Amino acid sequence: MRRLHHIVLSPYARKVRLALAEKRVEVELIEETPWTRELPFLRLNPAATVPVFVDDPGHGGAVVADSAAICEYLEETRPEPPLLAGDARQRAEIRRLVAWFDDKMMREVTANLVEERVMKKVRGGGHPDSGRIRAGSRNLVTHLEYIGWLADQRRWLAGDAISLADFAAAAHLSCLDYIDYVRWEAAPAAAKDWYQRIKSRPAFRTLLADHLPGFPPPEHYADLDF
Amino acid sequence: MRRLHHIVLSPYARKVRLALAEKRVEVELIEETPWTRELPFLRLNPAATVPVFVDDPGHGGAVVADSAAICEYLEETRPEPPLLAGDARQRAEIRRLVAWFDDKMMREVTANLVEERVMKKVRGGGHPDSGRIRAGSRNLVTHLEYIGWLADQRRWLAGDAISLADFAAAAHLSCLDYIDYVRWEAAPAAAKDWYQRIKSRPAFRTLLADHLPGFPPPEHYADLDF
Repeated sequence: MRRLHHIVLSPYARKVRLALAEKRVEVELIEETPWTRELPFLRLNPAATVPVFVDDPGHGGAVVADSAAICEYLEETRPEPPLLAGDARQRAEIRRLVAWFDDKMMREVTANLVEERVMKKVRGGGHPDSGRIRAGSRNLVTHLEYIGWLADQRRWLAGDAISLADFAAAAHLSCLDYIDYVRWEAAPAAAKDWYQRIKSRPAFRTLLADHLPGFPPPEHYADLDF
Repeated sequence: MRRLHHIVLSPYARKVRLALAEKRVEVELIEETPWTRELPFLRLNPAATVPVFVDDPGHGGAVVADSAAICEYLEETRPEPPLLAGDARQRAEIRRLVAWFDDKMMREVTANLVEERVMKKVRGGGHPDSGRIRAGSRNLVTHLEYIGWLADQRRWLAGDAISLADFAAAAHLSCLDYIDYVRWEAAPAAAKDWYQRIKSRPAFRTLLADHLPGFPPPEHYADLDF
């Protein structure tokens, strides 16, 4: 059986879970605690990061670490439906946006809020830093505006077709929504409409059923009509 | 004419310069100061990061931002010589290692040393943080060991063929060598031998001719027999 080693509130793992579900690749989810640096996990990925995908024996049991590498690997081994569709230029636009969310939004928003609100407690690592929480909340407004601007110009964030760019953005937003930091009533209408569309896809169901012990999501988290 | 917008000591721009040179794609280099947030550059890349590649009219003048997106784009538009060779699994290993250097080594080593030693002065941003410099130097030892371990097992870092993984690692090391933070006499022999091999390639010449005003490189920087 295929396995995905993950953490519930890792946006990188969530992006891969969405890509897997969209491509109808079933996986067993294995919850990790990479900060304990246990050898079996370090042997899978010496970088000690999630997600790590372990493919089935039919694909040689390949072990793939790093979410961008996993997504490219899935696109090469399970091309349908494509999540990097189009010519080289369109694919570059998808990849640029994935990096926007996974690097820039991660650093400016998601890492601040998820780390301070949840992961510090999970790991037992001290008090939340209110400065980082304020910065994360403030930056989230700008990122929602950018998502709204993209969704206003295009059917999906990178163009006419749904792509990894949508899944990357949705992965971050779903983490932030789980900890109730998205003020949907103040978000641009186009951003909310886009999130509603992607949240309604069957692939999203796996995320909506998530439950992190001690950190229940708000009621609207799993509501498609939020 | 094709253009690459870059910063001399950006390891991401250097990785792309190496890939371009290896594929014999000539570019005009344009030095940027992204921290001044000037509109013409923000229009090219709203993330305000280097590198940004602007392709020739024959390729529709495509503007590609983000170094990983640029490398994938180059691989798709100029497949020879391949820098992501092999089957899906081997390509995943190359991409995993690129992420290792561009995420992990960047955060643990390169960002600390290049930021504190050079970029703060270039931008006029205060005194170097000696704690970050010590951490960067200490972590560099571990990364050189990992490079040595890989180079001991394999011909090139990701396998039998030279790949983007080698160029990513060499891009970081060349920045660190420019500011004279690599203690080659204490580095694993296999790491030094690997760097000597990659440094001798014609593609590397462009980096060895670099000169950042006010920050001359040490004598051994351009020496192939360092």
